[in-house]
Amino acid sequence: MSILAAVDATRAALEKEPDRAVVRLRAEARLEEGTQTAVQAGRHTLTVDEPPSVGGTGAGPNPVQVVLASLASCQAITYRYWAELLGIRLDAVTVRVEGDLDVRGIMGLDADASSGPTAVRCMVTVEGPEGAERYEELRRNVDAHCPVLDVFTMPLPVERSLEIGNSE
Amino acid sequence: MSILAAVDATRAALEKEPDRAVVRLRAEARLEEGTQTAVQAGRHTLTVDEPPSVGGTGAGPNPVQVVLASLASCQAITYRYWAELLGIRLDAVTVRVEGDLDVRGIMGLDADASSGPTAVRCMVTVEGPEGAERYEELRRNVDAHCPVLDVFTMPLPVERSLEIGNSE
Repeated sequence: MSILAAVDATRAALEKEPDRAVVRLRAEARLEEGTQTAVQAGRHTLTVDEPPSVGGTGAGPNPVQVVLASLASCQAITYRYWAELLGIRLDAVTVRVEGDLDVRGIMGLDADASSGPTAVRCMVTVEGPEGAERYEELRRNVDAHCPVLDVFTMPLPVERSLEIGNSE
Repeated sequence: MSILAAVDATRAALEKEPDRAVVRLRAEARLEEGTQTAVQAGRHTLTVDEPPSVGGTGAGPNPVQVVLASLASCQAITYRYWAELLGIRLDAVTVRVEGDLDVRGIMGLDADASSGPTAVRCMVTVEGPEGAERYEELRRNVDAHCPVLDVFTMPLPVERSLEIGNSE
């Protein structure tokens, strides 16, 4: 199904059943040996790990690389969506995301150091035959509708729970 | 290298060269056919895509699943780190993360609907032989030092740029 057909089908479905507008997505991580972690998201699996320099085996990207990857891919895909919705020809998109991280924060070596990234940069390159103003229009719409950009830029409370199983 | 040895080595290295405390991590996404996207993070690659129901081919998890996966894995790995640092035995950790997403926001079907997740829940299960108060101590330290939890809960400005290449 094309993007435009999918958006039309979604619009029509939600006119009949507006309660279906909110979907629930899930990911489940299970810690394996050391820092190696298997994550299941729908029918997809992903291996996440720390590099050897910080005590892992480098079997996968680390969690901060994964969160940067989520932003880079969300921007790229939202460019595709909105180019279709706005009728803007888009021949290529590359998104580079960089995050600065203070290891003293994560490792508890300095109570004043932040654990999260201290700066994030997102550099988008698009290619296409249209005028710059159309790609700027596209950019504005992408940045207004990119879910993972919202995760970075907006404070979002995360409801948390801890269940403890005694394995003795 | 064990986690404790890696933390000691990092502490010693930063005493000599404090400027190396901030590391820069990167991810680069390249849009391929449709919504399929190849992401490179260090030497790791990841395929991200939308499911067929919203115009993709389901070749990988979608970006919101990936951002939830980053939180789930970051929590799991931070549990491992801080269990080591605090000397708490930890036999198993599973982290389930759920996010609610309003598709009307992403698709621009309702200007009032949010594009980012409207609610996120993070459910951790630990197993081990120690008392509940030790796992609660562990949880407090994990939540204070988990970088991706900060990405969700804190507003983080993302510096953005757009470069336009004319492909006509």
